[in-house]
Parts: sequence; C-alpha cells; structure tokens
Amino acid sequence: MPSAVVLGAGMVGRVMAADLAADTEITVTVVDADESSLARAEAGAIALGRAVRTVRADLSDRATVLRMTASADVVLGALSSRIAFRALEALVEAGRKVADIAFMTEDALALSSRAAESGAVCVVDIGVAPGLSHVLAAHGIARLATCHDVDMQVGGLPVVRRWPYEYKAGFAPSDVLEEYVRPVRVVEDGRIVTKRALSGRELVDVPGVGTLEAFLTDGLRSLAVTHGPDSGPNAVRSMREKTLRYPGHAELMSVLRDSGFFGEEPVVLPDGTRVRPLDLTSRLLFPQWEYRDGEEDLTVLRVMVSGTNALGEATLEQFEMTDRFDRTTASTSMSRTTAFPATAVARMLLDGAFSKPGVHPPEVIGKDPLLVARMLDHLDVRGVEVRHSTRALPVG
Amino acid sequence: MPSAVVLGAGMVGRVMAADLAADTEITVTVVDADESSLARAEAGAIALGRAVRTVRADLSDRATVLRMTASADVVLGALSSRIAFRALEALVEAGRKVADIAFMTEDALALSSRAAESGAVCVVDIGVAPGLSHVLAAHGIARLATCHDVDMQVGGLPVVRRWPYEYKAGFAPSDVLEEYVRPVRVVEDGRIVTKRALSGRELVDVPGVGTLEAFLTDGLRSLAVTHGPDSGPNAVRSMREKTLRYPGHAELMSVLRDSGFFGEEPVVLPDGTRVRPLDLTSRLLFPQWEYRDGEEDLTVLRVMVSGTNALGEATLEQFEMTDRFDRTTASTSMSRTTAFPATAVARMLLDGAFSKPGVHPPEVIGKDPLLVARMLDHLDVRGVEVRHSTRALPVG
Repeated sequence: MPSAVVLGAGMVGRVMAADLAADTEITVTVVDADESSLARAEAGAIALGRAVRTVRADLSDRATVLRMTASADVVLGALSSRIAFRALEALVEAGRKVADIAFMTEDALALSSRAAESGAVCVVDIGVAPGLSHVLAAHGIARLATCHDVDMQVGGLPVVRRWPYEYKAGFAPSDVLEEYVRPVRVVEDGRIVTKRALSGRELVDVPGVGTLEAFLTDGLRSLAVTHGPDSGPNAVRSMREKTLRYPGHAELMSVLRDSGFFGEEPVVLPDGTRVRPLDLTSRLLFPQWEYRDGEEDLTVLRVMVSGTNALGEATLEQFEMTDRFDRTTASTSMSRTTAFPATAVARMLLDGAFSKPGVHPPEVIGKDPLLVARMLDHLDVRGVEVRHSTRALPVG
Repeated sequence: MPSAVVLGAGMVGRVMAADLAADTEITVTVVDADESSLARAEAGAIALGRAVRTVRADLSDRATVLRMTASADVVLGALSSRIAFRALEALVEAGRKVADIAFMTEDALALSSRAAESGAVCVVDIGVAPGLSHVLAAHGIARLATCHDVDMQVGGLPVVRRWPYEYKAGFAPSDVLEEYVRPVRVVEDGRIVTKRALSGRELVDVPGVGTLEAFLTDGLRSLAVTHGPDSGPNAVRSMREKTLRYPGHAELMSVLRDSGFFGEEPVVLPDGTRVRPLDLTSRLLFPQWEYRDGEEDLTVLRVMVSGTNALGEATLEQFEMTDRFDRTTASTSMSRTTAFPATAVARMLLDGAFSKPGVHPPEVIGKDPLLVARMLDHLDVRGVEVRHSTRALPVG
C-alpha cells in the first residue's frame, strides 16, 4: 500500500492530507512542528471519515526531513517558504518523488541536475498560482502553432468586502506586502522588462463576482524561463502576471507604499526610536487581514493565451476558474485550489504517469495534454471547475 | 509714537510685523527665540522698504514676556500653540492690549475676568479660522432677526495638486492630523452633539478653484459658547465647521486613521520596539507636506448664515473669500489671511475703537457692524477680498 507524507500541517497541508486519505489505497502521514496544527489536520480528516497519522517534528532540520520521508512513496511539500528550500534540497539528494507548493525565493529548478543524478522526480510551484496558472498557460501555448501573448490573472478574496481594503490574506500577509513592493518581471516585445508592482491597473468583469481590478505583480516565475526570451525559437513575445483585487485596493497600497509605510530601512523618530515602517504597518494591518474561522473566501484564476492556430488563424485559448469556500469541509477556496493541483501530481508520481527525474516547474504537466486532462478531472471531481474556451480573434 | 510688539517671528508673525511697520506711525519689535526666523522677519520688512526691530528671547519664560512687552501699546501674539497660553496669561495680568492668533488648546476666554480686573483688552483666535470666520458668522447672525443655521467652511491648499494627498500644511502638520482625530462638536437641533472628524463629507464648487470636499472638523470653538445652546433666547439651532480639501484627501486620512496609523498609544513590534504609530506617520508624511520656498497656496473661506430677516423672510447671508499666494512679497495666503485680521484688531486696540477689558473671541468684532466694515476694508486694501451676498431662500 503506497504511502504519502505531507510536510506541513498548515491550511494547505491539512487539505492535502485529507484529500489523499480519501483514497483507501494510500496511507497518509502529516508532519509539523506545531501540535495544534497537527490536531486540526487529524480532526479535519476524521470529520470526513478518513484517517491520517500525525508526527510532530522540526522540519527545519535536514536529518529529520530525511527520516520522516524515508519510506514515503511520495512526499507533498507544504512548508513555510522560509524552510521549504532546505527540505526540498534534502529530498532531491535522497531521490524522492515530490509535489511541492511552497512559494520559495530560492531557485528550486537549479536543483534539477542533482535530481537527475539521484533519480528524484519533483514538481515544484504546483499550487494554484504559481501552479495551475502555469499548467494552463503551458497547455494553451501547446494548443497553438505560435503563441504571442500570455496573460495570467489571479486573486484570493474575501466574499464579504469591508472598507477600506476589501481584502483578507489567504496566505502569509507579509508575502502579500512583499508582492506589492517587489519589482515585476514581464516579457514585452521579446525582452524581459522590469515594471513597478501595482502598476498596469485595469478593470476586469468576472461573472458572479463583479468588477475586479488587475495589476502587475511578479508572478511569471518559471514561465519567464520555460517560455521567455531565452527559451528558443518558440519564445512568447509578451507575458505578464497580474493580481486581482476588489477595485481601490491597489490605489491604497500604492499610497501606503509610496508614502514610505512599506519601507524596510529603519527611520529614526524624534525620541531616538529606530523603527522599520514595514514592521509597524504589518503590526497594524495584518490583524485586520486575517480570515476568521468560517469566513468565506473565493479564488479567481484567468489565463488568456493568444496566438495563431495550425491554420494560421488568430486564436485565444482562455481558461477561467472561480472557486468558492467549501461549506461542507469549512475549508477555504485558497487552501483547496492550492492543495488539489499538488495532490493530482502526487497521484501521477505514485502511478508513474509522470516519472522524469529532475526538479520541474508546473509547465511540465501543462505541455502533456493527457496529464492536463487528468489534472482538470481531478479538480472537477473536487468541485473546482476550470472552464476552457477556444475563440477566433478578430484579425488586426 | 505708538509701539507694537509681535511675539513670534514665524510665518504669521513676520507678515504681521511687516504689515504694522508699513504704518510710519508705529514702531515694531519682533521677538523670537530663533535667530534665523528673526533674520527672515527683518529681511522681509527691508525688502518692502520698512524697518522692524528684532530681539532674540525665549518667550516660554513669563518674566521675559513681561519684559519684552513692558512698553508696548499693543501686543500681537503669534506663538506656537504650545507656549501661547502662558504668554497670554502673563499679558492679561499685566493689563496689556493683545490680538492673538495662536490655536491654543487651553480656554483663553477663562482668563476674561482677570482681564476685566487688570484692564487688559485681548482678542484671541483672531486669525482666518478661527478668526475672520467667526467675525463673519457673528456679523451674519447680527444682520438677521433670527438665525437658524451657521455653516463655516475653510481650507488652506497648495495650488499645484500632487498625488496622493494633494495637500500641504500651511501650519504645524501635527495640528492638521490632530484635527483629523479630535471628536467634533457641532450644534444640531439646539444641542451640542459629537461627531467623528472627517465625517459629513460633501462636495463644494468654488469658483476659480474647482470642486473641493468639505468634512467636519472641530472648529466651532467659541461659537459653541457665544451662540450655542446655552447662549440665551437667540441661540442658533444648528452650527458646524468644515475643513476644505481637494476631493479624496479625507478618504485617505480616514483609511490611515482607522487603520491605526494616527494612534497615540505605543504598539509593540515583534522585536520588542515600542512605537507610537502617530510618530512614525508624522515622520513619513510631514516632509511631503511641507511647502517649499515660493510654492504657492490658496485659502478658501465660506461662511453661510441663514435664518429670517426683520420682515420674517427666509434669508441667507453668505461670505466668500478665495485668497492666493502673494507673489510680490512671496508670502503665503495662509500667513497673510491669518495675520491681517489680527493687525486690523491691533489698530482698533491702538486707536481705541475697541477698548472693552476682557479676553474676547472674534465674535466681539463681528457683532459691531462698524468694526466689521473696518476689518473688511483693512483686508480689501491688502488684496484679501471677502464677497458678501444676501439672498432670499426658497420657503419650505
């Protein structure tokens, strides 16, 4: 009987564990340093009539990571971005099969040659965005003869909008503010160009949700490599990723950022106190940005890929997902849409549908139509629907 | 030859000194603790072909205040609100004639009985608002048989509007933020009611300036006493003061305030640092809110007084002033419109046109049509025009 080990019992890890445990063929172990997170993982599985084993351990320790995963047929990574890379590095050297959703700052793909040596098969960045976003973008690109433009838009939002920010953070709020500050890499006219975060604002109508605003954030990640200017003759000439929020949020964030409230350099106050503005801002905003238990969220993902089809006709491949909080399991849309692409890949790793050694970005799934179909089925069964349309574009 | 002493050589004190020195009958002395402010006062007068004497002295010291004003026929107070009350108290006890523009938090009118004993004749709050605003309100009330409503709106603004705040502070920016936090006293239906600052927003079209927004601030001050619920049978049933800004400013200030950035209680950061949010906010915003040398401002004052005239007809008395930076003297509109009501009163004190012992609010001028006419002439000669209209109001 195959065994899966989930590293991290946070919001996403818990959903992964319960999802895998639904398969009576798989034994599931969840590992975390925090007892209460483990208890919630266990309770969550039991509530669904499933069973998971929980182990308390400090996964910032390399030896512990190896010990905990020694007999795992597949490992799911759902660790904090702080410690995720070190854990992945250990798993790569030990030749494990891994599906990982951590938003690491380090370059996980640089571990690929070591994985090729050890036989490790790893897919990283395989949450919702990056993750499903990149699977769909690569799928759209593969369906076209020539691709000119990739436009990805994604946002996790509270259903109930409260003044002034109309926002809650579905993941670490410090990562959210970081996204509003970090310079944004986009591909324009065949070159990597840097833009300011929160710029390039546009309004977008999303059926059932209403009008949102989209603005640039640094979310291209692996796409800038796999389909960027240096990717060969089929490089895509323009690509960007945008974040979706309720209208007005970006303006407020710009005001705070440009007034200095996100500053990381300490400023000196009249009484001599030194303070990093970002620390105070985080202290004031984050409690207001926390989801309360049972507070409902939604996730919107839109991927628009355009180019020409095999007949030379201008064509748009469009993928749209609007997912909502699951009242049955009281789990957030953000945790579900992040966990399910990874549990889909975990099953592909278990049954050998995907078995190429290396550390791969999500595009590796996206370029194989059979794996894409399997992933979309996997999501659909879990209530996450991705609508796909292919449309002729007006010429000129 | 009469002598005037100006306490404080800040932006307003300097304009007062130069204005009084234009009268060859008056010798003018300016006192301040800061050498460079004194130098600017001297240079400003010389540039206009006038002469002022400057004395460096610490006016937070009571004995110094008395020594500096010992031979003054009239004293003009333009001190920081921090030290203004103590200076006024000394002047009251010494029986001086005073016109004061400081925005004190203490109740200066409470010194009135001591002034009556010593023979001191003082008019306080006699800048633009409070000041001219209250003169005009009282004048409008006096012109009606019965007054129902007083609406005062005032704002000092930069001519050039820059994102995001479209604001510069014509006086101490800490006093500006204080105005956005302090609960607002308004008179509604014959009772004093407390409202939130920045509330009660409305758009206002000002000819030559454009659309501004008006919102409640705590600017009624003495009017809540002189014409408030306890003022007798002629009490006005509703009165409010609003601040004028370019549209959008109040929303941003509300966001900052309600997010906690104006908080005066220290918060503890993860590293143990204790910081008052207001201190950091001031540190970040105030440099952006400073007028640069030569940067032009404008001041808008609107006072609408409505009720019934002697014939029982519904009537509106409206006063409007839009004043602009003076390029000839390179002095701001805010400093000129604040200084001139005080220099007008100084002359009334010198020639005995107003001689009643006590500490008086500006309404004392406003209720005497001859003094109002003299003040408006005084302003008009200096290029500050107040337009007055009397209109019948639609009935019902």
